[in-house]
Amino acid sequence: MFKIRDLQVLISGEIDREVKQLYETAPKNLYEPIGYALDMGGKRLRPVMVLLAFNLFSETIEKAYPAAMAIEVFHNFTLLHDDIMDQAEMRRNSMSVYKKYNENIAILSGDAMCIMAYNYLLKCNMGDPSHMLQLFSQTALEVCEGQQLDMDFETRSNVSISEYMNMIRLKTAVLLGCSLKMGAMAANAPDTTADLLYVFGLNLGIAFQLQDDLLDVFADQDKFGKKIGGDIVSNKKTFLLLKALELSDPETRKILQEWISREEFNAEEKIAAITEIYNQLNIREITESFIDEFYQVALDVHEELGLTGETKTELLQLASMIMNRDH
Amino acid sequence: MFKIRDLQVLISGEIDREVKQLYETAPKNLYEPIGYALDMGGKRLRPVMVLLAFNLFSETIEKAYPAAMAIEVFHNFTLLHDDIMDQAEMRRNSMSVYKKYNENIAILSGDAMCIMAYNYLLKCNMGDPSHMLQLFSQTALEVCEGQQLDMDFETRSNVSISEYMNMIRLKTAVLLGCSLKMGAMAANAPDTTADLLYVFGLNLGIAFQLQDDLLDVFADQDKFGKKIGGDIVSNKKTFLLLKALELSDPETRKILQEWISREEFNAEEKIAAITEIYNQLNIREITESFIDEFYQVALDVHEELGLTGETKTELLQLASMIMNRDH
Repeated sequence: MFKIRDLQVLISGEIDREVKQLYETAPKNLYEPIGYALDMGGKRLRPVMVLLAFNLFSETIEKAYPAAMAIEVFHNFTLLHDDIMDQAEMRRNSMSVYKKYNENIAILSGDAMCIMAYNYLLKCNMGDPSHMLQLFSQTALEVCEGQQLDMDFETRSNVSISEYMNMIRLKTAVLLGCSLKMGAMAANAPDTTADLLYVFGLNLGIAFQLQDDLLDVFADQDKFGKKIGGDIVSNKKTFLLLKALELSDPETRKILQEWISREEFNAEEKIAAITEIYNQLNIREITESFIDEFYQVALDVHEELGLTGETKTELLQLASMIMNRDH
Repeated sequence: MFKIRDLQVLISGEIDREVKQLYETAPKNLYEPIGYALDMGGKRLRPVMVLLAFNLFSETIEKAYPAAMAIEVFHNFTLLHDDIMDQAEMRRNSMSVYKKYNENIAILSGDAMCIMAYNYLLKCNMGDPSHMLQLFSQTALEVCEGQQLDMDFETRSNVSISEYMNMIRLKTAVLLGCSLKMGAMAANAPDTTADLLYVFGLNLGIAFQLQDDLLDVFADQDKFGKKIGGDIVSNKKTFLLLKALELSDPETRKILQEWISREEFNAEEKIAAITEIYNQLNIREITESFIDEFYQVALDVHEELGLTGETKTELLQLASMIMNRDH
């Protein structure tokens, strides 16, 4: 059994090789931006999940590389197009693709990445790859649905918590479930095991996204990559905000809504005021215990998998890595 | 054997059913624009090619619907994203998707269409669909390459005719070859026959695109859907222009280049001046005989297929429909 750190090194090597090749493929304006996008780094969480799930059942890890690459290329395609839609100029401390090149190049390179993801999957040396392709393609469409819901929420004032949960399930969680399940499928694991891994990943994914919402407000600025309070400034309808709107008395809700509708404001002041309301309403503790519910489901499923020894601990290690609980 | 007209009716019915369903699928902002894009009409040339090729070998035409839908949805995805890139506000006398909705919706709906195209293919009830998926996915990537080359050419002044031919092969012709080959594959036709159909479609596709370049200048305005001379006004590097630049003496070439570089001009005047140069250089006749070369290759391949009776005439009828020679 490989350690997570080993898997990260292995997949990074694969990605580096691919990037190098992309930089040399014509047309340059199509493939260089793809190389650039894949070269931006990150924890390579999703392809590591594919490899780890595969490794639970098989040691010939290189057989899972195509599926891992498919997931990573697909994920980076969604980031690339999301950055155009959000007009996000930076990504992991580098210029986003549309900013470095231009929007047209970013649209088309993204399209090519989506297609390339399928090409990787078609390289998987499996008997009949139909089931894996169906899972992947279904998941890919769900991710698009999640992204559309997220955009819809920006202009809606009446988003419910259950709508929000559905959105993060689609936008974030299904791809984590899919990554683990695809790894298991590539190793010809039993269907029931592959399905349990999907549920494990899905619940982790939901916990992961809620944690992300929480960290935006309550992280240590020193350890947090981005600026604290970004979601508050942009009125992002996070679990924290929706819960605060739900729990607040009419007077507090009015103050919240006033901050949301204000066009001009001092960012620090807005962050402080809304954080203060979150504190009054115990939003931090409520969110933490909500996260724990999903994390606990994941742990229960983990037990149900009946793993032992290294396989058991390594999968658990993955869970705590996803939740940022290991560093 | 179905007639082309029957196949058009059949696939239109399929598309209508799909459109109706899309209009009722949530999230509305993701799926309604896809329904709108598919509902714009057109000759449904590519899906008809899938059905016709299938029908050469099998009468159970409904088995080819998923492959035909995959091709049509993919083709409309490329049109949808192309319209964003070209800022084309109209498509087939309707507002283009990005204009009717907005750019973000158009980007994401297009992404979903690309994924949906694969979902259709995965519905094909075949033993192992890998080969068909590989052909489709390879072709899809080539279409992206062609689109990128086309965009690259806009800002280049030294495009050679062989570069242009490579671009139209990728952007237009490979999808026609792929449509026919996929239809044959769906009917489990022999590999050699499927390959011949690909070559037939590819050569027809090249002839089709060159014809398109020619009609932009020399069509009867009455029968032509768009305004004559659009490519001339926008300095599009068509076969006609590249050939004229190649054949002209230094003085004429200077006049051509002057028109190309002029920022302000009267459109009618520019069209008249450049058409006059084309006439002096016999560009119309040269292009027509160049088209005939590719059309002839297609006809030779058609003979090589060894079809007889209805199958033979129907495939020939398709060729003349593609070349606009039947109406």
